[in-house]
Amino acid sequence: MKITCQKAELAKGVNIVSKAVPTRTTMAILECILIDASTNEIKLTANDMEIGIETIIEGTIEERGIIALDARFFSDIVRKLPDNEVTIETDATFKTTITCEKANFTIVGKSGEDFAYIPIIPRNEPILLSQFTLKEVIRQTIFSIADNENNKLMTGELFEIEGNHLKVVSLDGHRISIRNIELKESYENKKVVVPGKSLIEVSKIIPGSTEEMVNLFITDNHIIFEFDNTTVVSRLIEGEYFKIDQMLSTDYETKFKINKRELLDCIDRATLMVKEGDKKPIIMDITDGNMELKINSVAGSMKEDIEIGKEGKDILIGFNPKFFIDALRVIDEEEVSIYMVNPKAPCFIKDDEDKYIYLILPVNFNTATN
Amino acid sequence: MKITCQKAELAKGVNIVSKAVPTRTTMAILECILIDASTNEIKLTANDMEIGIETIIEGTIEERGIIALDARFFSDIVRKLPDNEVTIETDATFKTTITCEKANFTIVGKSGEDFAYIPIIPRNEPILLSQFTLKEVIRQTIFSIADNENNKLMTGELFEIEGNHLKVVSLDGHRISIRNIELKESYENKKVVVPGKSLIEVSKIIPGSTEEMVNLFITDNHIIFEFDNTTVVSRLIEGEYFKIDQMLSTDYETKFKINKRELLDCIDRATLMVKEGDKKPIIMDITDGNMELKINSVAGSMKEDIEIGKEGKDILIGFNPKFFIDALRVIDEEEVSIYMVNPKAPCFIKDDEDKYIYLILPVNFNTATN
Repeated sequence: MKITCQKAELAKGVNIVSKAVPTRTTMAILECILIDASTNEIKLTANDMEIGIETIIEGTIEERGIIALDARFFSDIVRKLPDNEVTIETDATFKTTITCEKANFTIVGKSGEDFAYIPIIPRNEPILLSQFTLKEVIRQTIFSIADNENNKLMTGELFEIEGNHLKVVSLDGHRISIRNIELKESYENKKVVVPGKSLIEVSKIIPGSTEEMVNLFITDNHIIFEFDNTTVVSRLIEGEYFKIDQMLSTDYETKFKINKRELLDCIDRATLMVKEGDKKPIIMDITDGNMELKINSVAGSMKEDIEIGKEGKDILIGFNPKFFIDALRVIDEEEVSIYMVNPKAPCFIKDDEDKYIYLILPVNFNTATN
Repeated sequence: MKITCQKAELAKGVNIVSKAVPTRTTMAILECILIDASTNEIKLTANDMEIGIETIIEGTIEERGIIALDARFFSDIVRKLPDNEVTIETDATFKTTITCEKANFTIVGKSGEDFAYIPIIPRNEPILLSQFTLKEVIRQTIFSIADNENNKLMTGELFEIEGNHLKVVSLDGHRISIRNIELKESYENKKVVVPGKSLIEVSKIIPGSTEEMVNLFITDNHIIFEFDNTTVVSRLIEGEYFKIDQMLSTDYETKFKINKRELLDCIDRATLMVKEGDKKPIIMDITDGNMELKINSVAGSMKEDIEIGKEGKDILIGFNPKFFIDALRVIDEEEVSIYMVNPKAPCFIKDDEDKYIYLILPVNFNTATN
């Protein structure tokens, strides 16, 4: 194999596919990036068997061939090359020479034959979404997936399509994040659970332009993200996702509007009082026109008042501050509406159009000491 | 005690003195920042017994007093306060209330009585140096102090004053860094060894302006850095520093000029071939007009040619790449001159005026395999 391409183009491609290189694996070949120049295009591929990424880079094929190169080592070399044309040449023993200006690296690659190619999946009609929308919706929900594998379904996100409507849901047993997106066109109904890890990697490599689109293909076992010159194939998580509709009651006893930035900063300050491992709740004392936010811990105490616009009953309720911070951080609106029922029922942060719903369970606290 | 000051001013002061808070200590009081408002000024102090820092901040003293507050906790709180006026008030039980806008923190401080104040040292005539010069000279030499305590003197830097000349030296047994600085005035001769750790902290907190000065005071056991509203007192390292003059022979067999950036980038690329713990040298093959730089390791090999302007003999010599990278990174000149004697004698990177001299010992390598 002999190919030439620009360093920037090669570095971009390597950076994209590197996201699918497993950090730990018993299959040494998976630690490689495959350069496939056996046809008319130069394709880079990496695959950790759950997520596979391939991307086509611009360049010239002088001699067709395939080579697998250690991903970490190869990407370190590419990154440090001068910003000029790079030549990659291999011989029959997989010895690979990488040349750029006067720099000349020789490393030993592997035959591409054992490489686990990305499965070829028959594609139906694509679902169209802007890169920006997909990247945003992942950011706005990914924080509330569960980080342990006790319940596999909780480590993924529900992608549900109904007509021209996409709903994305994540939950971890203490909170639920829901985002509703209107699509330009209508599609066949689908309901799948996508691994959170795959979504994290996808959101890292999507440029996120509002103009450029992502083509989504959903099959029984896979989801495919196609954008620019890149294809990401991820397995789906099997099983039926949680029925969340019954948790989303619309009744409330207390409703208030509050400045998002003020509330976020205030909770952020309150968390200073919580040392690691210590599970002190923040207490919200909500009365007409005012919320007193307070926290007591071994380290000391903190309290602060915030002006609110309240309807309904007064309430004294406690929360894990992190859950509030996570949700507030991904809401763009300046003012948010918060709905509460009682100190043991979940609270909702949501907008009037249900574009977003963040449900957070309160925690018990001893009123005597707070 | 009751004081008020602006958040930015308080945060700046806390950030400065925090550099002298020990990370590990058996004396809990040293983990504190002392706020001393017992006179007409608000002074913050921290002291780890080797380095002590005090800084005066602007503010109003409403009630005189002293309090010691846990440094980490206090600085976290200060950093997260709104950008406005802060009030710090203590009561007889050292309970401390920090108020800013509507935020209100209560933490428990300690009596300032047990605090290890910075020693009061009689000051002689100050040595004047611009903040920029001091910050630069530390950066340009600090990397070659030894990082273990086997030889205490190697963990510090020599500050030698002769007339209007300041020489700063560091060495670790494999290399020597020397910087010579011309002072505006002449001073009494002095020769002291300053702990590297103190210099690192000083260089972090000096703003580094070319206009503003640092007053240096040197006594038998201490060095004092005075700048802006801050005083840093560091112990000196006892003992006689190494005699380096006899190592600085001016004879050479090979001299060449080389573009600094090209050499640095090339060595940087070569280090890709060196995995951690592997002590592979880079080999420089210096002939008329050309240096071939190469490295061979288990991972593969790399070679690159760089144009040079050479006088004297050809030479084949090996180095630890890190030592070259460290020295080249702190040289501002676009072109450097390198002097060599033979493959076992130290090489020198230096300018014509001896403003800087970097001496690097070569390493043995097996010519057969390289």
